[in-house]
Amino acid sequence: MDASRDEFQSIVGRFACQVQWGDCDPAGIIFYPTYFRWMDAATWALLESVGYDAKRMRTENLAMPLVAANCDFLAPAQQSDRCEVRSRISRFGGKSFVVTHDIVRSDGTPLAKGAETRVWGRFSGGPGTPMKGEAIPEALKAKFRAK
Amino acid sequence: MDASRDEFQSIVGRFACQVQWGDCDPAGIIFYPTYFRWMDAATWALLESVGYDAKRMRTENLAMPLVAANCDFLAPAQQSDRCEVRSRISRFGGKSFVVTHDIVRSDGTPLAKGAETRVWGRFSGGPGTPMKGEAIPEALKAKFRAK
Amino acid sequence: MDASRDEFQSIVGRFACQVQWGDCDPAGIIFYPTYFRWMDAATWALLESVGYDAKRMRTENLAMPLVAANCDFLAPAQQSDRCEVRSRISRFGGKSFVVTHDIVRSDGTPLAKGAETRVWGRFSGGPGTPMKGEAIPEALKAKFRAK
Amino acid sequence: MDASRDEFQSIVGRFACQVQWGDCDPAGIIFYPTYFRWMDAATWALLESVGYDAKRMRTENLAMPLVAANCDFLAPAQQSDRCEVRSRISRFGGKSFVVTHDIVRSDGTPLAKGAETRVWGRFSGGPGTPMKGEAIPEALKAKFRAK
Repeated sequence: MDASRDEFQSIVGRFACQVQWGDCDPAGIIFYPTYFRWMDAATWALLESVGYDAKRMRTENLAMPLVAANCDFLAPAQQSDRCEVRSRISRFGGKSFVVTHDIVRSDGTPLAKGAETRVWGRFSGGPGTPMKGEAIPEALKAKFRAK
Repeated sequence: MDASRDEFQSIVGRFACQVQWGDCDPAGIIFYPTYFRWMDAATWALLESVGYDAKRMRTENLAMPLVAANCDFLAPAQQSDRCEVRSRISRFGGKSFVVTHDIVRSDGTPLAKGAETRVWGRFSGGPGTPMKGEAIPEALKAKFRAK
Repeated sequence: MDASRDEFQSIVGRFACQVQWGDCDPAGIIFYPTYFRWMDAATWALLESVGYDAKRMRTENLAMPLVAANCDFLAPAQQSDRCEVRSRISRFGGKSFVVTHDIVRSDGTPLAKGAETRVWGRFSGGPGTPMKGEAIPEALKAKFRAK
Repeated sequence: MDASRDEFQSIVGRFACQVQWGDCDPAGIIFYPTYFRWMDAATWALLESVGYDAKRMRTENLAMPLVAANCDFLAPAQQSDRCEVRSRISRFGGKSFVVTHDIVRSDGTPLAKGAETRVWGRFSGGPGTPMKGEAIPEALKAKFRAK
């Protein structure tokens, strides 16, 4: 997956977060799965920003399971660092999409850069029932397009 | 809640676990919510030991949401410490029950001692649908009684 | 521990947080150890509000390990719920203190109510070296007193 | 990074784990950062298997911070699934190395496949002090070579 080649001009979501004591390991820096927790939350926030909030996703049985995720760690973060995850859709496939995330500390230092490949899917019933990918509506794609 | 006064003579479940690097904080010891993660997993294992495994709980729409939880931290644990959570039902109410947990390191050192108060409940539909507490079946209580 | 009998008139810290997708379990509600993660972060924020930020704690080799923690769960929280942890010092002992936390949803619903008993300590060297409790300075206690 | 092209014939570590209730999200399947937590723990276990256990790492001020991590998610895992992380060193650089992980369910189903790129480093003092990468000793590399 070449997440660096952006085919889609996306809006940029901004998700604020802070490194907590419990997010850090005995080396005194952030435990790396924390970045993936943040990326997941940032993707949900990006969806919410275009009208697909958690409640709507739930009500309409929508899901966006992961196919792949990756992250490059650029600089160590420490407890209390205030950060922002800047997220955009870097590619839309038929039923899948890639979200690219830049994680930046409040002093401007890039901390990490990652991407998630997700499928757009729908549960047959409620959560926990079988889920099938479905074509991403053009109307939804349009909402992510930068003006 | 007086979890020390045991009214019920329970079987004892044993759940093995180990302190991981990512479970520890910058002080080099276990981050305390980890103990609650272990207690939750140990309760599920205790239920499984009497025939109520995760799949059955799911299929029968059963749930056991928390009312309260507490823990005393007796000694610090470090990365790679192997531990055991020893769990028993210390009290059965009509629709609720208390699970008491002793967390012990492999060298015999007691690390923590906690309790969870839970309700026995059932979802009206699948997970995520409204849940109502219901009377704990006497047959289920009997399964937990020490022989 | 009777955390309800407040002997100390404390300032109240306010820590904002939000229930994320990954904080929830298959029942579609918050996984309860999340509340303890929040309480820990809220205590650090309370300390920061009186001048003891993470960096100072680190530099001065200060620590505040847990003796006990408890929480009552009052109402289920769901993904995207915005919450506030309202924290105050409910008791000061010689070397220990109790932090009481009320977790409230943005619509005013109380979600959980918990307490942490902590020791005020200092590492002999850096983090990971032996830690000893020490008397809480009166000047520090004074900072927490409500005006 | 092409983790599939193995230049190094490595021993294979086996780390046992199980999907817990709290590791799953409202879709009823594993929350993906859990896989990264497992990979981290599996790498520590692999190091332990060649004599570099947590205590030795601590005592000798050794560290292995991440440069990058990635994971492909192949099949959804559910609560109580028993799994094994099969880990090997797929490449050694001068100061860095790549650990490749296959996560397999007890029924043989591949669940995920990931890799971590790490630096071999040493803290100048204890944990939390500045850390510098250093050449991976040939003697250490030899320990990972499959016989």
